[in-house]
Amino acid sequence: MLSKNRIKYINSLKISKYRKLNAEFIVEGTKLTTELLQSNFQTSGIYATKEWLQENILFSKNIDCQEVDSKEMTQISNLTTPPGVLAVAGMPKIPFEPLSLESRFSLMLDGINDPGNLGTIIRTADWFGVDQIFCSPDTVDTYHPKVVQSTMGSIFRVKVIETDLIDVCREAKKMQIDVFGAVMNGQNIYEIKLKRNSSVLIIGSESHGIRNYLLPFINFPITFPAYSAPGKENKAESLNASVASALILSEFRRKMD
Amino acid sequence: MLSKNRIKYINSLKISKYRKLNAEFIVEGTKLTTELLQSNFQTSGIYATKEWLQENILFSKNIDCQEVDSKEMTQISNLTTPPGVLAVAGMPKIPFEPLSLESRFSLMLDGINDPGNLGTIIRTADWFGVDQIFCSPDTVDTYHPKVVQSTMGSIFRVKVIETDLIDVCREAKKMQIDVFGAVMNGQNIYEIKLKRNSSVLIIGSESHGIRNYLLPFINFPITFPAYSAPGKENKAESLNASVASALILSEFRRKMD
Repeated sequence: MLSKNRIKYINSLKISKYRKLNAEFIVEGTKLTTELLQSNFQTSGIYATKEWLQENILFSKNIDCQEVDSKEMTQISNLTTPPGVLAVAGMPKIPFEPLSLESRFSLMLDGINDPGNLGTIIRTADWFGVDQIFCSPDTVDTYHPKVVQSTMGSIFRVKVIETDLIDVCREAKKMQIDVFGAVMNGQNIYEIKLKRNSSVLIIGSESHGIRNYLLPFINFPITFPAYSAPGKENKAESLNASVASALILSEFRRKMD
Repeated sequence: MLSKNRIKYINSLKISKYRKLNAEFIVEGTKLTTELLQSNFQTSGIYATKEWLQENILFSKNIDCQEVDSKEMTQISNLTTPPGVLAVAGMPKIPFEPLSLESRFSLMLDGINDPGNLGTIIRTADWFGVDQIFCSPDTVDTYHPKVVQSTMGSIFRVKVIETDLIDVCREAKKMQIDVFGAVMNGQNIYEIKLKRNSSVLIIGSESHGIRNYLLPFINFPITFPAYSAPGKENKAESLNASVASALILSEFRRKMD
């Protein structure tokens, strides 16, 4: 049985302000909870229903789970159909280390505001072997429940660092690291030559693109070309931010190999 | 002023059953409404607030808009922040024409169930010049408000046809059209050779992939390879369905040019 205070506390973690204050967030479902426990993230509580515990007996044997009834689970879950297990995890504190820009491909997100897009970008970065993402402070909160769920566990493997992007750009410039930026009228990404070393790619927000203050740091403005159906004029004006990121990451990876 | 019956009718279009019954759906915002009016889709009503009409005077001069107050707009809108203009559009009836498979790259979606994913796939298809998509009857409704919004207008340019996918596959087989399918253990997409002619690509659902009954029709099972960060084992198990579709479409486009 969960105390009223604990229910209240877990529910407070649905709000960004309280997540930041307590440096904790909610993780739901068997896959994400398993990945949490295999990661370096702290866990301050795991709550599971009787039915879930019976189905996952090996899991619960090795882990300190608290049994809750389905009414309590509904009270703490973020999901319309609660998956039966929920964990409270600690947010890692990851400072920006300029040296981490070396020998690595990093991503910078300037004001992405849709949680599904951010989660999908983290998941896609993980797939393409990108393990460091910088987010501007006005990017949607990394530990928003919808972001966490849509990373499908990649949130435990990719370092996501909230920081002023201008600091990262200044360090990159000092270190002569290539800065790419996805813009409207850049060079065709297919024609770009990539050196095999460190680089940073900036992706702008869904509605405003990359903001002006970052533009002077971009050495390589790039654009992903659109196509037309046979005999038709192409009218699609843009791609979803997570799709654009994936296409560019894929192209970079291809050129690096 | 809107009649109670009209408000009730527009609200009924938020539910799939009533959309299908009336063959109408809701479109919101300046961009989507403009694209609707430029398309071949029917429009049975446009509703706008006074503020919106003042800001978009050229638009409203040429179009038969009904002014509504902001309370009425909130009552009919699907969005937390109503954009000030909403239109009721007619669903086109597009039957499956086997001949349309020729000289064209078509997409088949087997049970995609997230509205954001479907909308993003339609938008991405439009970008890559794919203008025909077949959806299995259990794919999320194409005219679901979230699908419509996330297509960013591409819904008015891409033919989306709900039909039994097996019928499309049978016709493709008869016509000797190549059928590609995104699966777990297919050929590396980078190594696939593409003929320049007609082809079909099947994308499975987020949780179950392509269902068994379609597998025998796939001539070319393909897989998108994952990568690892330097010195790390790659653990990301999958990509979001809309991201996977985009990467494959991009690769196909590249090979066709």
